Amino acid sequence: MTKNRVEAFSDGVLAIVITIMVLEMKAPPHADRIPDLLPVAPAFLSYILSFLYLGIYWNNHHHLLHAAPRVTPAVMWTNLHLLFWLSLVPFVTAWMGENHFAPQPMALYGAVLLMAAVAYWALQRAIVSIEGCDSELAQALGPDWKGKVSTFAYAVAIPGALLSPWIAGIAYVGVAIVWLVPDRRLARVIERRSSAPDAGA
Amino acid sequence: MTKNRVEAFSDGVLAIVITIMVLEMKAPPHADRIPDLLPVAPAFLSYILSFLYLGIYWNNHHHLLHAAPRVTPAVMWTNLHLLFWLSLVPFVTAWMGENHFAPQPMALYGAVLLMAAVAYWALQRAIVSIEGCDSELAQALGPDWKGKVSTFAYAVAIPGALLSPWIAGIAYVGVAIVWLVPDRRLARVIERRSSAPDAGA
Amino acid sequence: MTKNRVEAFSDGVLAIVITIMVLEMKAPPHADRIPDLLPVAPAFLSYILSFLYLGIYWNNHHHLLHAAPRVTPAVMWTNLHLLFWLSLVPFVTAWMGENHFAPQPMALYGAVLLMAAVAYWALQRAIVSIEGCDSELAQALGPDWKGKVSTFAYAVAIPGALLSPWIAGIAYVGVAIVWLVPDRRLARVIERRSSAPDAGA
Amino acid sequence: MTKNRVEAFSDGVLAIVITIMVLEMKAPPHADRIPDLLPVAPAFLSYILSFLYLGIYWNNHHHLLHAAPRVTPAVMWTNLHLLFWLSLVPFVTAWMGENHFAPQPMALYGAVLLMAAVAYWALQRAIVSIEGCDSELAQALGPDWKGKVSTFAYAVAIPGALLSPWIAGIAYVGVAIVWLVPDRRLARVIERRSSAPDAGA
Repeated sequence: MTKNRVEAFSDGVLAIVITIMVLEMKAPPHADRIPDLLPVAPAFLSYILSFLYLGIYWNNHHHLLHAAPRVTPAVMWTNLHLLFWLSLVPFVTAWMGENHFAPQPMALYGAVLLMAAVAYWALQRAIVSIEGCDSELAQALGPDWKGKVSTFAYAVAIPGALLSPWIAGIAYVGVAIVWLVPDRRLARVIERRSSAPDAGA
Repeated sequence: MTKNRVEAFSDGVLAIVITIMVLEMKAPPHADRIPDLLPVAPAFLSYILSFLYLGIYWNNHHHLLHAAPRVTPAVMWTNLHLLFWLSLVPFVTAWMGENHFAPQPMALYGAVLLMAAVAYWALQRAIVSIEGCDSELAQALGPDWKGKVSTFAYAVAIPGALLSPWIAGIAYVGVAIVWLVPDRRLARVIERRSSAPDAGA
Repeated sequence: MTKNRVEAFSDGVLAIVITIMVLEMKAPPHADRIPDLLPVAPAFLSYILSFLYLGIYWNNHHHLLHAAPRVTPAVMWTNLHLLFWLSLVPFVTAWMGENHFAPQPMALYGAVLLMAAVAYWALQRAIVSIEGCDSELAQALGPDWKGKVSTFAYAVAIPGALLSPWIAGIAYVGVAIVWLVPDRRLARVIERRSSAPDAGA
Repeated sequence: MTKNRVEAFSDGVLAIVITIMVLEMKAPPHADRIPDLLPVAPAFLSYILSFLYLGIYWNNHHHLLHAAPRVTPAVMWTNLHLLFWLSLVPFVTAWMGENHFAPQPMALYGAVLLMAAVAYWALQRAIVSIEGCDSELAQALGPDWKGKVSTFAYAVAIPGALLSPWIAGIAYVGVAIVWLVPDRRLARVIERRSSAPDAGA
């Protein structure tokens, strides 16, 4: 039951974060033609990117908490920490969109993504450490190459954005594509756990 | 439990989308008479229409996920895709309301409804394909004439709006009325499933 | 489970409606003294009143759905209808607060409360009719004097507001006080039902 | 089940309150350099503080309701009362941030925290009184020194803010640090209860 409520609260925050971004796209009031929407286009593109990222986070968060044997105080706080960084996504999305993907807003967007990735990694560690580093869950997560690739991509994208926003843009879209494939590793643990209920703690 | 969380997240997003639309209706600050509300009337009318559509989507989504035997990655992503298009409803509702149902905003409203209908159809396919096309669920959904009528109505309404906004207006209200009747087909599957628990997978 | 999701969606909408009202209270940006908050006072007072009303609705809605034997399409739609009127509360609250409790905004506030009361009554009828008018639930709800008193108070307050806003103000606060006492009738049915599970349908 | 819905509604309100604060940080539209974000810095700092406080409240609320044997009308209303004060946090956060931590906004921030602390104490009393003051839960909560320290800190910080905002700032950060450690007392009751299901009522 405790796990349920952590999930419910996280779902609530993520659902709101994903939805309030749409409030940043202001409908032009006395302009009733499709070309009048052109100024909103960068905001729309940045909304799509952030919707994708938050959808991916929700999806992986869903699998990760499902695989967690129980909720500890460390899980509670690392989860809140992750939600903090994700709650900043609407702000950096708006700044990036309103400034038409200028170098520094692109870099800051990457910095928030990087911090969210670090926070997700910390949540993952908190969940793995419940059962120990030799546990089935720890082994299933394995070398976590997706997490490493993302971190590397952000580390390149943040300074890269200052050279050319295209470097950052390609990195962010690329990382999103890499993560769109759901995490097979966790799905396997969950399946094994259901078939062999004595596998975990 | 996995299904529960997909439902909870979708409920969260839909509840927020349906409610933030009300923020688009700005109460006139130094105008304390009923006639002062007249400029808000188009926003109010478009709010009613969108509330109705989102209510219908929530209702059908509720029945569809209830009938789903389980949640697969395809269900997760097609569901997020549906939520993406529905999250754009407040934007097109505001644009349509603020421009007093002008042709192009009416057409764009229809385009978002059309994309949402396509996304709902994809979600339905993802759920049906879990059990195969010969399954009871697939047969219950049958020829899906409501979905086809809606798609046809939107396809007429989008270019029709450019001729006269009334064509689109009648189409959108008409489709809403068609869908207001809840989906008997899914209700039957759910009932049969409860009485015969071995019916599904 | 179906009932769970109707409750979850209603909780979501009510939680958002109750919370976004706070966005109407704009903190004065370059004014850092308590007296600078004076212009926000009417918005704050109207926020308290609406918070109270929405809290009462949530509380009674909670008891009513708990007493419902199951969810029918009529329950779904009357519930959405209730949520529609409650979703207008932030708008009329803002209009009333911004115009310092002027007669016509006070009357409109009452009109929305009246429509919400009618919608709640319709939801109650939809739930009672599942088990028939002779059922224990129907008898427990009894003559529903609170509902009748509220309707009468709104009917007096709406025209009364045009004579003097104080009439409406006293009526709205009075009705809130009447409802603050939780509904003993439903609590009794729920208790009896838990102790004798064969009492209902 | 009743408890579930109180938790779900509280989670909803807290999730929204914690997230809408981010809307107060307006991204500068035609300013695409990091130094352009400097004016947003006070809003960001106050956001971090309030996020921390709301996270702590959610965390403790979670443990407190988990330890509650059941939900009574007194729990319902004291819970709504707590949510009312917490719903004012975005307003005072915005006022404090926009006025760069000026004395009077700092004092008002403390006043809302104080009222929330009183409301939390009342909720705690309502839950404890279900089982009586000699119950295991009452004994586990014990002398509640954290609650007393916080109340004392706010009582010093509110007038102290008028002398120097630093006094209030240190008090608020200090209280947050004190509470960041999760409540061991309640965790013990919950654990004992799970291992000995006949321990409570």
